Amino acid sequence: MSRGARGPMAGHSALSTSRLITRDELQLASRNHAAPLEALRWPVTPPGMHYLLIHFDVPQLDPEAWRLRVHGAVGHELELDLAELASRPRRSLTVTLECAGNGRSRLDPRPLSQPWDLGAFGTAAWTGTPLGPLLAEASLDPDAVELVFTGADHGVQGGVEQDYARSLSVADACADDVLLAYEMDGRPLAPQHGYPLRLLVPGWYGMASVKWLASIEAVRTPFAGYQQAVAYHYQHDAADAGTPVSRIRVRSLLVPPGMPDFMTRQRLLAAGPVLLRGRAWSGTGPVVRVDVGIDGIWSPAQLEPAAGPQAWQEFSCVWVAAPGTHRVACRAWDAAGSVQPLEPEWNYQGMGNNAVQAFDVEVREPASGA
Amino acid sequence: MSRGARGPMAGHSALSTSRLITRDELQLASRNHAAPLEALRWPVTPPGMHYLLIHFDVPQLDPEAWRLRVHGAVGHELELDLAELASRPRRSLTVTLECAGNGRSRLDPRPLSQPWDLGAFGTAAWTGTPLGPLLAEASLDPDAVELVFTGADHGVQGGVEQDYARSLSVADACADDVLLAYEMDGRPLAPQHGYPLRLLVPGWYGMASVKWLASIEAVRTPFAGYQQAVAYHYQHDAADAGTPVSRIRVRSLLVPPGMPDFMTRQRLLAAGPVLLRGRAWSGTGPVVRVDVGIDGIWSPAQLEPAAGPQAWQEFSCVWVAAPGTHRVACRAWDAAGSVQPLEPEWNYQGMGNNAVQAFDVEVREPASGA
Repeated sequence: MSRGARGPMAGHSALSTSRLITRDELQLASRNHAAPLEALRWPVTPPGMHYLLIHFDVPQLDPEAWRLRVHGAVGHELELDLAELASRPRRSLTVTLECAGNGRSRLDPRPLSQPWDLGAFGTAAWTGTPLGPLLAEASLDPDAVELVFTGADHGVQGGVEQDYARSLSVADACADDVLLAYEMDGRPLAPQHGYPLRLLVPGWYGMASVKWLASIEAVRTPFAGYQQAVAYHYQHDAADAGTPVSRIRVRSLLVPPGMPDFMTRQRLLAAGPVLLRGRAWSGTGPVVRVDVGIDGIWSPAQLEPAAGPQAWQEFSCVWVAAPGTHRVACRAWDAAGSVQPLEPEWNYQGMGNNAVQAFDVEVREPASGA
Repeated sequence: MSRGARGPMAGHSALSTSRLITRDELQLASRNHAAPLEALRWPVTPPGMHYLLIHFDVPQLDPEAWRLRVHGAVGHELELDLAELASRPRRSLTVTLECAGNGRSRLDPRPLSQPWDLGAFGTAAWTGTPLGPLLAEASLDPDAVELVFTGADHGVQGGVEQDYARSLSVADACADDVLLAYEMDGRPLAPQHGYPLRLLVPGWYGMASVKWLASIEAVRTPFAGYQQAVAYHYQHDAADAGTPVSRIRVRSLLVPPGMPDFMTRQRLLAAGPVLLRGRAWSGTGPVVRVDVGIDGIWSPAQLEPAAGPQAWQEFSCVWVAAPGTHRVACRAWDAAGSVQPLEPEWNYQGMGNNAVQAFDVEVREPASGA
């Protein structure tokens, strides 16, 4: 992955110092659904509220004609249809996914791409067959270094025409919890979530979980495709070779209390005790601590265990809200010692911005009954 | 509905002459999901791709505690739980819904509200029980003039704290196809679509189909709530009393051919014959004609019948695309004689902009095999 292989980066070549949003960003924000923050109330995100990031068009695939090819540096090529995949060992996992660009629109200057605020998350029960045994069946060559996963979605990004494709090291691909998933929340995948089959890589940002999976190719040299070698890097600037984006950074988010104003989304709350609830997750270990901050004073929240090692954890605390405007925030730590930064850590592509969520709540005296 | 009753219109009081989008608009665009235009490939919109417009927060309602009250100017008040509603006569309808604000962001100046481009549409199979017989059972008073439908979603809009509420005349509410819907595409409503019960008013823009329905009140004077008397009006300016928004205006939309560029969504297509497909609908009668325009030359498309009187109709035509940049457009007529305007008809709230869709396609010579 030499610097010379990067090529043009039209998708990430522009920064904006304006708070205002471009038309190109609006088009992306309209297509790529964010979860509303109140979706955090549900332990499993209701279908249709889970975030979506789709680079090109949602393909409409014929399940009868569709096949998964496993090929390249393998002893036995495989070509599997849906029925063959469904007849293999079946496993369900509750997994929290997040887009690597979540929080991008909060950076200044703002990298011009999908302008996520904080809603690029979701938790679902995914069902499929583990990838590792299937790769064993294909007999990976000893000199295979990566698996390249290619989807059926096709378009142009950064001046490069491409099928969406990402790779994983052999070790990462053979991790126990990596699935070829054909069901989400007990139903066949919706078209926009990768029907009929997607890769699912728990703990990694969503770019790794290739949708509309058509091909798995074992390769003897690291994959240098656009989505692997150009996009999804932590870079200081356009010339920086950068570091690949991989696992999900620790994050916590609160359900905004009270009620919203339609246009501004300003939160309004009646004075008195209120239960603040939220969810926290990390791709580098269990969350071990969440603090909730009110006007800069931090207190530990009660933290619940996860439904599984790949799923988020609920936290809560009671706040006795007094009239006035208050700044509410939350901050999580994981078992690996990672903690959310108080301020965004800027990078050129706007990746992995897990800075603490903080928002104002206007607390009013409850309406008098008299 | 006197002009004096309008009150402040914070949600619609501002216009922008800038092409750039405000942060408030971005927040709304992130919450309120648009269907991607390629969703038009499916005769029934896959769940999760159907548009959503949610004024306040998605409520999380307890189906055990939830009741529907029918009260006001009635002989017999009713209070029904979900099981009682499900035991009533059951009816399923395939219905195309659209937000009244669809196309708003294409107006200049741009009314500052949810900045829809063209994706505020969706078609689903809705199942529920007809409203008319239930109202008959409640024995509407002869002097009842309207039914007021109130949802459980609550917040502030235009400076007014409110439950979302809309009314219909007795005649409109008793129309044969008005449902109390508890299923969408064969499953209980998703939370964001109104679980456990919503009103469904086919042929009307979506604001009439009140979600999270909690109360139906028969009233003897026209309802003057915010969403009825202030919002959802065709107005020349802020001082204009305006005309209420009601039925869906005729519209057609094409599936964009070829492939997109990630950032700009510019369409790229290989030269040669291509099947252009789209869907057309109207709340004022069946669609009777759709023309497709290439570089300003219009030709009739083949138009298919609808799956039902409340659902959209497919249209298609073959275009032999020659290299170069071409302007592709479509335009529909309905049986009532309504036709899509070639240019937007501006109004102060940005309602009902059904101007023709037109977009550029860059056609390239197919890659040579040599």
